[in-house]
Amino acid sequence: MAKLYPIVRRCVLLQRPQALIGAWNHDNIRYFSDDTHSHRNQKNYLHYGAAIGGAALVTSLYIFYDRKGKHKSISAASSTAVAVARAGHSVDGLPVYSISEVSEHASKEDRIWVTYGNGVYDITDFVEQHPGGDKILMAAGGSLEPFWLLYGVHKNPSVLALLEKLRIGNLKEEENTEHLLANMGDPYENEPKRHPALKPASVKPFNAEPPVSLLVESFVTPSDLFYVRNHLPVPEVDPETYTLEVSGVGVESISLSLDELKTKFPKHTITAVVQCAGNRRSEIIAVKAVKGLSWGAAAIGNATWSGVLLTDVLKAAGVTDNPPGVEHIQMNGADVANVPYGASIPIERALDPKNEVLLAYEMNGEPIPLDHGFPIRVIVPGVVGARSVKWLWEEQEEESSSHWQRNDYKGFSPSVDWDTVDFTKSPAIQELPINSAICDPVEGQTITLTSDGKLSVRGYAWSGGGQKIVRVDVTADKGKTWHVAHFTGQDEKSKTPHHWGWTLWKVEIPVIPGTKQVELWVKAVDSSYNTQPENFENVWNLRGVLNTAYHRVNVNVKQKIT
Amino acid sequence: MAKLYPIVRRCVLLQRPQALIGAWNHDNIRYFSDDTHSHRNQKNYLHYGAAIGGAALVTSLYIFYDRKGKHKSISAASSTAVAVARAGHSVDGLPVYSISEVSEHASKEDRIWVTYGNGVYDITDFVEQHPGGDKILMAAGGSLEPFWLLYGVHKNPSVLALLEKLRIGNLKEEENTEHLLANMGDPYENEPKRHPALKPASVKPFNAEPPVSLLVESFVTPSDLFYVRNHLPVPEVDPETYTLEVSGVGVESISLSLDELKTKFPKHTITAVVQCAGNRRSEIIAVKAVKGLSWGAAAIGNATWSGVLLTDVLKAAGVTDNPPGVEHIQMNGADVANVPYGASIPIERALDPKNEVLLAYEMNGEPIPLDHGFPIRVIVPGVVGARSVKWLWEEQEEESSSHWQRNDYKGFSPSVDWDTVDFTKSPAIQELPINSAICDPVEGQTITLTSDGKLSVRGYAWSGGGQKIVRVDVTADKGKTWHVAHFTGQDEKSKTPHHWGWTLWKVEIPVIPGTKQVELWVKAVDSSYNTQPENFENVWNLRGVLNTAYHRVNVNVKQKIT
Repeated sequence: MAKLYPIVRRCVLLQRPQALIGAWNHDNIRYFSDDTHSHRNQKNYLHYGAAIGGAALVTSLYIFYDRKGKHKSISAASSTAVAVARAGHSVDGLPVYSISEVSEHASKEDRIWVTYGNGVYDITDFVEQHPGGDKILMAAGGSLEPFWLLYGVHKNPSVLALLEKLRIGNLKEEENTEHLLANMGDPYENEPKRHPALKPASVKPFNAEPPVSLLVESFVTPSDLFYVRNHLPVPEVDPETYTLEVSGVGVESISLSLDELKTKFPKHTITAVVQCAGNRRSEIIAVKAVKGLSWGAAAIGNATWSGVLLTDVLKAAGVTDNPPGVEHIQMNGADVANVPYGASIPIERALDPKNEVLLAYEMNGEPIPLDHGFPIRVIVPGVVGARSVKWLWEEQEEESSSHWQRNDYKGFSPSVDWDTVDFTKSPAIQELPINSAICDPVEGQTITLTSDGKLSVRGYAWSGGGQKIVRVDVTADKGKTWHVAHFTGQDEKSKTPHHWGWTLWKVEIPVIPGTKQVELWVKAVDSSYNTQPENFENVWNLRGVLNTAYHRVNVNVKQKIT
Repeated sequence: MAKLYPIVRRCVLLQRPQALIGAWNHDNIRYFSDDTHSHRNQKNYLHYGAAIGGAALVTSLYIFYDRKGKHKSISAASSTAVAVARAGHSVDGLPVYSISEVSEHASKEDRIWVTYGNGVYDITDFVEQHPGGDKILMAAGGSLEPFWLLYGVHKNPSVLALLEKLRIGNLKEEENTEHLLANMGDPYENEPKRHPALKPASVKPFNAEPPVSLLVESFVTPSDLFYVRNHLPVPEVDPETYTLEVSGVGVESISLSLDELKTKFPKHTITAVVQCAGNRRSEIIAVKAVKGLSWGAAAIGNATWSGVLLTDVLKAAGVTDNPPGVEHIQMNGADVANVPYGASIPIERALDPKNEVLLAYEMNGEPIPLDHGFPIRVIVPGVVGARSVKWLWEEQEEESSSHWQRNDYKGFSPSVDWDTVDFTKSPAIQELPINSAICDPVEGQTITLTSDGKLSVRGYAWSGGGQKIVRVDVTADKGKTWHVAHFTGQDEKSKTPHHWGWTLWKVEIPVIPGTKQVELWVKAVDSSYNTQPENFENVWNLRGVLNTAYHRVNVNVKQKIT
């Protein structure tokens, strides 16, 4: 239906190619390692790029896994260094193609070609195994470099070695596109400063979470400790010229500046969790490798968000009822790489003011920080964070065709792998299931018991769809005895099914004297009495989302000196 | 707020006491056995009333359980027969009390006395252990007989033996209330005829479910095979004189006959599941005994319901917005024993037409059968069956104070027992969590594989709160491989979160040749990606509700003769 699109959008300027070899760092390797799992012929393989010194010394290990993620064999690809050295350079004896010829190969039917430096590559058969999904198609018929600047993960010798396996020719020397990139800088060079406590899961784009133990220190997560999930560089939006235009089918077009948004509509404030679909992915990886950032249990935060109700803006544009045939509201961000980051929500959710979908301009009482969507971020409370699109948006009448809507953030059966997955078979994640985690103590910690011999445990619990947490159970003896936690933080004003905030809890568990190690489990129950699955084996899914099995933490008990 | 109360209500006439000894039957014993579990001093005991012949031969066994439901010891109470013989008769040497004196003891503070025949009993200390909860208080200061007529479970020698332990005196001979009951008949004598396929979990009141295998034969469950959950005798309501009066705080009073209800408001039809909170209780009992009817997996059904939207009736009474301070709508049935069966739902649910709360007068296109609430049954789709009050109703501004609302149909932690339970600590069950079951094959069945060596499995899945089923996984190898079922029945028209019907599914699973036994598991996933817990140990609760762990069915595979 309506198109709400930003007049001002930061063009993603790509000014200068980075050194592609030797510039990676530990964080990017971590990202890559987590993100490249794929299935092929009953085997899963992970690429580990190991930087030993310079390009010539790089070795790439292919570690083979069976379906259950067990090591099968390790073999060193000795030709990797040679392949890396060839990457992007002309290779004698190969056919020579023009840019125009390459551009004719932009679909599966015509084969999909890309260029990198002077190399021409046929990636058709690789597309399905691409760890980043079909985002690779953005480069179809053109150059890889602009996208590799955006996704720092590719600055890895094992990627170059893999690319060279797809080599089919050389680009005409005079048509090398490198000069086009000559004036482009690092698209990440203007990224905001981040709190040093944030632990990156990847640096470019920036994805990071705070130490999980900090989460329970405050019902409202401080903005600078709130986990960051960026898919692209942070776009720069000028608030002075920012304009939101509302238009589309059945819509009376209006244009709104940031100032008009703030002054023409009532200011509405909610307390709501934003949680990544991949929160706690690091735990599901223990069952079998998955694609995705290796998040701990802190890819979640609870904040107050102030802004304009989406329903108020739609009403100003003459939309109060569901236009016939319209099923989704689509939102696109200003973080653009060929296509913007995008998502959509069912229009029914958007049109009910009780759902409190917000065009937020404040987070915790301050203008929304750059990393969290300045100047306007959509907040869809009760729904996976992926739909709370940051940095402006537009609205359309069908489900977003974005990669992140159609081919990501979906759940599958444990036996579905990358050979058999059909993304049309699962609905896009909207409301998230119930989840909980122990934040204090943390895994491996040595703790001191209270004076009366108890172990103090704290954490969070939350459920999507506006369900309220009604109970949190903790056990220190693998389920023989469950202790009901008391709530130390819960938004009492909000009611089911419009309860958007999380619940912080605490429990003190008696420990038998002399106990040296304790395994703690937590599970929560929400107002629909849904609860969590017990372990990850039976909920494993190839994208490593919806990681809601009991959170388990092993701690050591400090013995008193007698 | 509003009081919608029936003008015509069947008075529960108690006309003739039944023989209290020797008249029980197997079904009642089964009910009693399931319903009398309680904790005391770290021990749980079950009473089994075993009818060996006549009253004199009756023996009562007290089987002691520890907290995990394991047998500890069995001792025969040899004095039971004596106690049973004394029950209700004057016993020499005991104090004599008048009805008036007994009536002064109707509260815990004054001690709670009741009479049975010529016996006077102090039940104060027994109230907490009463298997039927505080319903026993309906008899406080008065006679037990009228209530024992309603709850056939008491016609059991072990109950009489237990009662005699509480004996404190005799009732004045001339005040024996038996003559008051002299003209009373069996309150169940006018019960409707039932389909012979329904398997009773208790006969009086009538509670029964169909064979689970029948559920998958039809997307819409036939009315006469729909499980029946009655708390009292089926009341007789005359449709000709039936009047619904709508009144209360902030309400413009109106009166509506059945004919007016049908003609003055649009007819609205939904397809919706009604499920008992105790569905699948027979499985959780395997972990540790619980209170409640031993339901199989068929205390659920899916029907079309036609009637009047509650919001339309409220609108006619001038109620469109939530009156300030009003949080619940209370509904009471015409099934009355001192107090009516009652329940309430949050007013927010009642006031949103999208929630489609219905005053239904048709079930599957016919007038609602007597057992299902003739002439009017409330249908609260997406919510536990206990709130879909049958046989008329009234509405009030606070949560129902009914036993079934406040002290029943709530979930607790596995470690909460009858000594520690505090019913104020848990919210009343409204929306139910996701559940699924295998209907075909059934436990213990010997099955023939398909011609290509596959095992065909069928069942249902459903989730409360209007969540749609998005996936059903079945495994025949304890989770090593999960097979995604295809849906054979799902209401395509209804959308999340207003999807009220169930989903029928089918899957064919390859079986390794020579396999003799297979254990099947099913779990489902709903549109909020909630799924089921794996086993009952960690979700056990003292009332045996919310039994949603993986449904597991063991079958034998018929070997082909080669």
